[in-house]
Amino acid sequence: MLHQQKLRFSTTGRGTYNITRQITETIEKSGIKSGICQLFLQHTSASLILCENADKTVQEDLETYMTKLVKDGDSMYKHNDEGPDDMAAHIRTVLTQSSMSIPIYKGRCDLGRWQGIFLWEHRTNCHKRNISVTIIGEA
Amino acid sequence: MLHQQKLRFSTTGRGTYNITRQITETIEKSGIKSGICQLFLQHTSASLILCENADKTVQEDLETYMTKLVKDGDSMYKHNDEGPDDMAAHIRTVLTQSSMSIPIYKGRCDLGRWQGIFLWEHRTNCHKRNISVTIIGEA
Amino acid sequence: MLHQQKLRFSTTGRGTYNITRQITETIEKSGIKSGICQLFLQHTSASLILCENADKTVQEDLETYMTKLVKDGDSMYKHNDEGPDDMAAHIRTVLTQSSMSIPIYKGRCDLGRWQGIFLWEHRTNCHKRNISVTIIGEA
Repeated sequence: MLHQQKLRFSTTGRGTYNITRQITETIEKSGIKSGICQLFLQHTSASLILCENADKTVQEDLETYMTKLVKDGDSMYKHNDEGPDDMAAHIRTVLTQSSMSIPIYKGRCDLGRWQGIFLWEHRTNCHKRNISVTIIGEA
Repeated sequence: MLHQQKLRFSTTGRGTYNITRQITETIEKSGIKSGICQLFLQHTSASLILCENADKTVQEDLETYMTKLVKDGDSMYKHNDEGPDDMAAHIRTVLTQSSMSIPIYKGRCDLGRWQGIFLWEHRTNCHKRNISVTIIGEA
Repeated sequence: MLHQQKLRFSTTGRGTYNITRQITETIEKSGIKSGICQLFLQHTSASLILCENADKTVQEDLETYMTKLVKDGDSMYKHNDEGPDDMAAHIRTVLTQSSMSIPIYKGRCDLGRWQGIFLWEHRTNCHKRNISVTIIGEA
């Protein structure tokens, strides 16, 4: 069995957005009970991560860390047409993921207890972000 | 054909653990000869990597590098309930992977000659770590 | 339906190589119209990334950034048998990906408009690099 659909998210600036509920609902609607749910973010300046879902300071610290690791507007960048966050967003994407698969086990999204799925917007402006979802498995 | 099972590993502190044999055996037992083996670590303070399997200094250097890149107990972290390695472990996880797929080709786990699959424990204490394995393919 | 094949690439030194066309053609030849294309690079000193495909300065900046983040010949490395780029190449691989899946949707490789698939050679010498491709889905 195979189920495909697109999910669209609106982001309101740099930061992580918990999309676990939308992914879980998409899996439930597919009717697939065992298999994998492949998520693919169709952009090069935002990414997908799995991270702690309970304490919001984890997400804040993650952002603080990444802002220090990949400097906006670094003078070494040649690519800066869209502003100081342009090249930084591409690098942040490469250091995380655009493509990941989540297992579906006994009818549910088989995340660990503390795991959430997050869309990480790396641009400072608002964006529309598309995820291509492919679910493969058995009913 | 679809095969699912859980693997459980005990870690004895920060470092990488070669789990290639356990994954290879799980694939062999599944009876699936062509397809993919999807590995999903159900935790946010440990991760999965593919890395050189022969010289143990590679794993030591990797640890040395990561310890420098992501400082334990950095004063910029707000999230430190479980000690100085708490937030560092979440960041190290995000910079590596929790989800990866390995091809199964002509009846075997199709790793390159020097590739090993490692569970990377990022916490300094002992932990139990679960991997959800989903194998999809043909016999 | 399942299709498997190996792709072989020759690299001519450190840098990113756009392999989108070869992947797209492999998907088209498979006859699979909906599903996933799993790419697996069988090496520990090169990696796979999804990145901006239009402006070549993005790839140049990415290289500049990574060269600064992971220093060649760092005195902290014990593993340096094959030269100053040896251990750096392993670290660069771990910080990016060796395994990724691309969705196939309505008969085509469902990349975003600005996304390209790149093989990133991390060694300074020429190499032959193998990708194990597994396509699973429906015709």
